[in-house]
Amino acid sequence: MKTVTLHPGKDGAGVVRRTVLPGGLRVVTETMPTVRSVAVGMWVGIGSRDEAPEHMGATHFLEHLLFKGTATRDAMEISASIEGIGGEINAFTAKEYTCYYARVLDEDLPVAVDVLADVVTSSLITADDVDSERGVILEEIAMHDDDPSDVVHEQFAAALYGDSPIGRPILGTVESINALGRDRIAEYYQRYYQPRRTVVSVAGNINHEQVVELVARAYERAGALGGPLECDPPRTSGPGAETHSGVSVLDRPTEQANLVLGTTGMSRTDERRFALGVLNSALGGGMSSRLFQEIREKRGLAYSAYSYTSAYADTGQFGIYVGCLPSKIDEVLKICRDEVSRVVEEGLTEEEILRGKGQMRGGLVLGLEDTGSRMSRIGKNELVYDELLSVDEVLARIEAVTPDELAAVAADVLNRPRTLAVIGPYGDKDFTTAIS
Amino acid sequence: MKTVTLHPGKDGAGVVRRTVLPGGLRVVTETMPTVRSVAVGMWVGIGSRDEAPEHMGATHFLEHLLFKGTATRDAMEISASIEGIGGEINAFTAKEYTCYYARVLDEDLPVAVDVLADVVTSSLITADDVDSERGVILEEIAMHDDDPSDVVHEQFAAALYGDSPIGRPILGTVESINALGRDRIAEYYQRYYQPRRTVVSVAGNINHEQVVELVARAYERAGALGGPLECDPPRTSGPGAETHSGVSVLDRPTEQANLVLGTTGMSRTDERRFALGVLNSALGGGMSSRLFQEIREKRGLAYSAYSYTSAYADTGQFGIYVGCLPSKIDEVLKICRDEVSRVVEEGLTEEEILRGKGQMRGGLVLGLEDTGSRMSRIGKNELVYDELLSVDEVLARIEAVTPDELAAVAADVLNRPRTLAVIGPYGDKDFTTAIS
Repeated sequence: MKTVTLHPGKDGAGVVRRTVLPGGLRVVTETMPTVRSVAVGMWVGIGSRDEAPEHMGATHFLEHLLFKGTATRDAMEISASIEGIGGEINAFTAKEYTCYYARVLDEDLPVAVDVLADVVTSSLITADDVDSERGVILEEIAMHDDDPSDVVHEQFAAALYGDSPIGRPILGTVESINALGRDRIAEYYQRYYQPRRTVVSVAGNINHEQVVELVARAYERAGALGGPLECDPPRTSGPGAETHSGVSVLDRPTEQANLVLGTTGMSRTDERRFALGVLNSALGGGMSSRLFQEIREKRGLAYSAYSYTSAYADTGQFGIYVGCLPSKIDEVLKICRDEVSRVVEEGLTEEEILRGKGQMRGGLVLGLEDTGSRMSRIGKNELVYDELLSVDEVLARIEAVTPDELAAVAADVLNRPRTLAVIGPYGDKDFTTAIS
Repeated sequence: MKTVTLHPGKDGAGVVRRTVLPGGLRVVTETMPTVRSVAVGMWVGIGSRDEAPEHMGATHFLEHLLFKGTATRDAMEISASIEGIGGEINAFTAKEYTCYYARVLDEDLPVAVDVLADVVTSSLITADDVDSERGVILEEIAMHDDDPSDVVHEQFAAALYGDSPIGRPILGTVESINALGRDRIAEYYQRYYQPRRTVVSVAGNINHEQVVELVARAYERAGALGGPLECDPPRTSGPGAETHSGVSVLDRPTEQANLVLGTTGMSRTDERRFALGVLNSALGGGMSSRLFQEIREKRGLAYSAYSYTSAYADTGQFGIYVGCLPSKIDEVLKICRDEVSRVVEEGLTEEEILRGKGQMRGGLVLGLEDTGSRMSRIGKNELVYDELLSVDEVLARIEAVTPDELAAVAADVLNRPRTLAVIGPYGDKDFTTAIS
């Protein structure tokens, strides 16, 4: 058992420490002595992009099933144990990891650790529960399908990455969910939910030694402390996910058209990601951004218009989203293309660069005042990065971005082949010129 | 100028003070000395239910226009001044009030106060801006219309309150927005945005005297300090909003049916509101609630199933929301009716009452750790309540709810005439038995 201090913090706050337990289970904590609560996350390094075709949707299905019952608690006991003390418990599945988390008053930390460790290590996954939860997941798919602003983002990923694990929907499809049986999901659980691939992250009014002891005890009780240190990396689709350029149109009688116009972005470890962040802020990151000003403020063509980046181990996305009345789409697409070209040709103004940096800086600092976001930051970092940058280090990297770097990143990313996803009442309207 | 301490706090944290400036402008603050940020809100006591028919949608339209330009700042300067320092600025319109807010680092408090006071007191509302923003609002309406889970809640309010201001959509309708001209909106602004009807609330790492001075200076510079202390209460539809029972079905080819089954609830000042809160938590407030257990955990009939309450000055709503595949709706409605009847006839179990209280308690405490939620609590309270209960007082009221009170509230609210709103592919299917 080895404990290291990753960041010394200041006056007892912001101290980040990591202990590795037998079997490779990692526990990272951050102290926030002025709050009364704690956030606890258990991060498993397995996501939807790790699914073989016969497992499509299994990662998310499993996330649901882990709340259905363990050797010692049924579904009601799992939720009641946390909700009865005024806490919340939930989970989410991403393309590269799955996270189970709870937020409770600091004195209730032992309950949160105990319940989360129980579901992560000791779920039963009965055939009955699989069948009942299948219905819930089919409802979730239907719900997403009714929201065009959700659909268009999945459509964009599918167009960009094609029919590969990272391009597929996290929820799976109606067909894949209907095809998944109990045994296949249980086997997936046994194989991938190992301590070696798990990070427990806790932020709030805590003491690192106490957290480590609680986690160790809970895992030991479950017989899950120890185990093989080596396990094959599950990733099936990296590095170097294949990408495609093209147009995907979904003909639907919606009131608004929804579109995503974008390209590949940068991987999570790309050194230029801070420059891409500043570029993204200036181009479409807020109300003062170019796209918002041109599309909404000056012309009233949309309510929602923004750009975004997302990053994975080996690839990333850069996209512009706009929702607008179907009749406005050609004008909106022209503005998007023109503004992107303008940035490539003329660069950003000094003012825009300053504002972009200010926005990134503020978003980071203001976004880290609650226990949940601190817990997420250290947990996700431990799982997917080699190093944990301190907040100050991240701020310094943002500050250090130069106009030349910005110009280079713009010339690279914004000139990549484009992909367009559109949902709206368009029949067989041809959008190919929009990406030329 | 009169300053009172509403709550003494503890060790310098949680101190709530109020100062009334000339003209009746109220400034309330709460100290949170351990954070690095501040949240500033300007609350105007005017909402969509205060609109005469010819003003329908004007409150929300105005909220948009206040970001378009003042005597000294254009739209770009308004957003850039806050975003450039890493802050966020936004606003929302409710049925009984409108709120403009910003969140910034504590050292930037003067900027936030200055910009918000500027937009609230000195917006120009030009005809050009009205026309351009009209397009944005029509987009917003179309966006909402594409989300059936949004639509069904508006549909429920319309069915419950009929064609009265409180039953109408906050955004207005395509027709009402197209009919609103510059002069009518400007007149609405002049008439209702008075200091007497405004509360400035600030929470974070602040000093009350400094906040008061900044607000006074900003309002004075705008010529908005002082003015008549008396103004007619604008409310046109209270007290005693008329309510209706009935069924509203919207036939749409959605993947999921969305339904709200409910009744009137309780007004914001009803002494029994804490009992209704506990009842609501136990019936549909979380994953351990009866409705979630019966509909989702046991039968897998829905992804989202919950109950909720909302409260206004003179009325309120109690509703159950479920999204489910269209073929499941009869079964879901039967469970909703059965569970409601069971609560009325048999009451809640001791365990459910404890859990309901724990959930309300925890939700309150955990929900008040950030500056934004503290700012909202004190600002909204100052505007709509006669007194500001401390968090401890609210916790004591929740704790004090007795089984007898719960039984009485259940027997009252859950036996009221019911209203059902449904959106889904139902043609002219008859749902009247569902509310009998």
